[in-house]
Amino acid sequence: MSKGRLEAFSDGVLAIIITIMVLELKVPHGASLEDLTPLWPVFLSYVLSFIYIGIYWNNHHHMLHAASRVNGAILWANQLLLFWLSLVPFVTAWMGENHFAPVPVALYGVVLFLAAVSYTILARALAAHHGSDSKLARALGADFKGKASLAIYLTAIVVALTLPWLAGLLYTLVAVMWLVPDRRIERVLAE
Amino acid sequence: MSKGRLEAFSDGVLAIIITIMVLELKVPHGASLEDLTPLWPVFLSYVLSFIYIGIYWNNHHHMLHAASRVNGAILWANQLLLFWLSLVPFVTAWMGENHFAPVPVALYGVVLFLAAVSYTILARALAAHHGSDSKLARALGADFKGKASLAIYLTAIVVALTLPWLAGLLYTLVAVMWLVPDRRIERVLAE
Amino acid sequence: MSKGRLEAFSDGVLAIIITIMVLELKVPHGASLEDLTPLWPVFLSYVLSFIYIGIYWNNHHHMLHAASRVNGAILWANQLLLFWLSLVPFVTAWMGENHFAPVPVALYGVVLFLAAVSYTILARALAAHHGSDSKLARALGADFKGKASLAIYLTAIVVALTLPWLAGLLYTLVAVMWLVPDRRIERVLAE
Amino acid sequence: MSKGRLEAFSDGVLAIIITIMVLELKVPHGASLEDLTPLWPVFLSYVLSFIYIGIYWNNHHHMLHAASRVNGAILWANQLLLFWLSLVPFVTAWMGENHFAPVPVALYGVVLFLAAVSYTILARALAAHHGSDSKLARALGADFKGKASLAIYLTAIVVALTLPWLAGLLYTLVAVMWLVPDRRIERVLAE
Repeated sequence: MSKGRLEAFSDGVLAIIITIMVLELKVPHGASLEDLTPLWPVFLSYVLSFIYIGIYWNNHHHMLHAASRVNGAILWANQLLLFWLSLVPFVTAWMGENHFAPVPVALYGVVLFLAAVSYTILARALAAHHGSDSKLARALGADFKGKASLAIYLTAIVVALTLPWLAGLLYTLVAVMWLVPDRRIERVLAE
Repeated sequence: MSKGRLEAFSDGVLAIIITIMVLELKVPHGASLEDLTPLWPVFLSYVLSFIYIGIYWNNHHHMLHAASRVNGAILWANQLLLFWLSLVPFVTAWMGENHFAPVPVALYGVVLFLAAVSYTILARALAAHHGSDSKLARALGADFKGKASLAIYLTAIVVALTLPWLAGLLYTLVAVMWLVPDRRIERVLAE
Repeated sequence: MSKGRLEAFSDGVLAIIITIMVLELKVPHGASLEDLTPLWPVFLSYVLSFIYIGIYWNNHHHMLHAASRVNGAILWANQLLLFWLSLVPFVTAWMGENHFAPVPVALYGVVLFLAAVSYTILARALAAHHGSDSKLARALGADFKGKASLAIYLTAIVVALTLPWLAGLLYTLVAVMWLVPDRRIERVLAE
Repeated sequence: MSKGRLEAFSDGVLAIIITIMVLELKVPHGASLEDLTPLWPVFLSYVLSFIYIGIYWNNHHHMLHAASRVNGAILWANQLLLFWLSLVPFVTAWMGENHFAPVPVALYGVVLFLAAVSYTILARALAAHHGSDSKLARALGADFKGKASLAIYLTAIVVALTLPWLAGLLYTLVAVMWLVPDRRIERVLAE
């Protein structure tokens, strides 16, 4: 089974997710700069989520690029990932409109955590399908960054309930960690 | 006539359908977990429809993968399928916002039934175009699951008017039945 | 310059246009069949526009399939076509919500007319780029259906102001005329 | 790393941006031509932004066509461009709904300016990756139009605060300047 349509469908869903989030930036009625002030938290959470979806697209791109074929399990692992990412606009808007209140910030982390777990499942399904000595399996390797991200998300979810701004910083930290595309894959492919 | 753009257009429409459904998950004004409680039925119906659109994409992917060419009748059968699927966000939202009330649950089944009929028409048009002894025609075969789905949908539509929750279970049953991609096609292609 | 991205971008825009129209089908608050009754005009106009966008996609698919290359003029003629088609959701909703009142029905025709003019410009730009004795130029030929459509649209726009339902029938007539994909192109290509 | 998915993802995002802007053209309640009158500023700003996104798609298409490969820096420069362009629907709606009031017109210019800066960064990243004597680097050349655009945007942002209509004319001037696709690239590639 070819991977072309899986990539095309994922690209479509990710492109729509990243774009419809901007619809939550409701146009204010006034025409002065002060009328934009209440939008800052919504804008900030939009920026964070835009970067996250960009990271997912980027790493998804790299990982699928290294893959040569897909099967049913991979298709469904990919659907699961897209499902959690499809909830990002909702939690982004909830967090932004409530000015980073504790529960919305924690729920944002829960969705990020579940998306990251799904991405790990997808990576494992791809590695299993290509064999443990495949380039892809070696490229994914010990996945230190993936495990660290999961741990930071869990920490941030707990922290959010008392110090939501610290949780926001932790989400930003994970984003910064991932802004560099997955060099492991580039390195192994370059061999 | 090549099948590439038919796949691309279908991928686009399905990606948008699956993603705009999340816009019905209206962001609540409060910032506590209790504020999310009224969203449960909307969320549940979103999950069900997400899985259904995922199944359609998956099986559409498999079926078109086995096809080698398309004609005008196939293009229009595909449009008909996309039309009924484009109504899924509407019936999903109606069902969710009315907490699985009888008529909305029945209408949800009507749309699923008509989408399934359109899918059957598309499958027949593809089989006819490729010849009755083609791999594709043999792969589609007796289509037991397709016929069973149609029967269950009809049952669920009637049941919905008195026991909407049972109808919901029947829709879930069909989804589970289809979660496995169409092995027939994989098997015949592997020969 | 290759035609691949022109097709991909057009597919994307058309897929979004056809799908966001369904967002105008606002979910009613009640849960009975009667609550759906006021939606009939909106649904009818949705069906008509879905078919029209489907026809445009279909014919665009055929025409570009016959083309082998594009230039700047073709890109902009295509943008112009997409611009008028992007207004279809707006006029569809206005016509539906006003129960096929005279002015909205006339404006619907104006947008269809301008989209058809843009399609003709695109066809001419493609024919000019491929040469007057190219397969594509011969396939497009005298374009009887295109000219007839323009005449019917103009008639319908005038008629709409006094007999909007007759105008609606004329729009339906043009749609039926085009439901068959452009055989000319298939015929010439098959030679 | 291949450029195919970068093009596909960008096409998707640009197609969605260009299409969701039309959702700001809210359907009026009345059914007469006068009911459309208040929509003129929104429509005008929609037309301007539609042309701008079309220009970006067009030039992006040309530039990537001339590229043969991408790297991580290019992917992120592209994300940055898409981010600023994703804000176009917001500033378009704000400018239109406030009838081209000073601050919204200035902010529209700020977003255009930042998008143009991001495009320049993307162009430089592509040129750097392909080498300073590559076709692409020579095709991008001194980039007179790019620099002139940046200067006009900055002028327009200042002008907007006192003469918003003049700023609108300056934005239109830049659009006209770019309506012709980037001949430099075509010329160098044709060598």
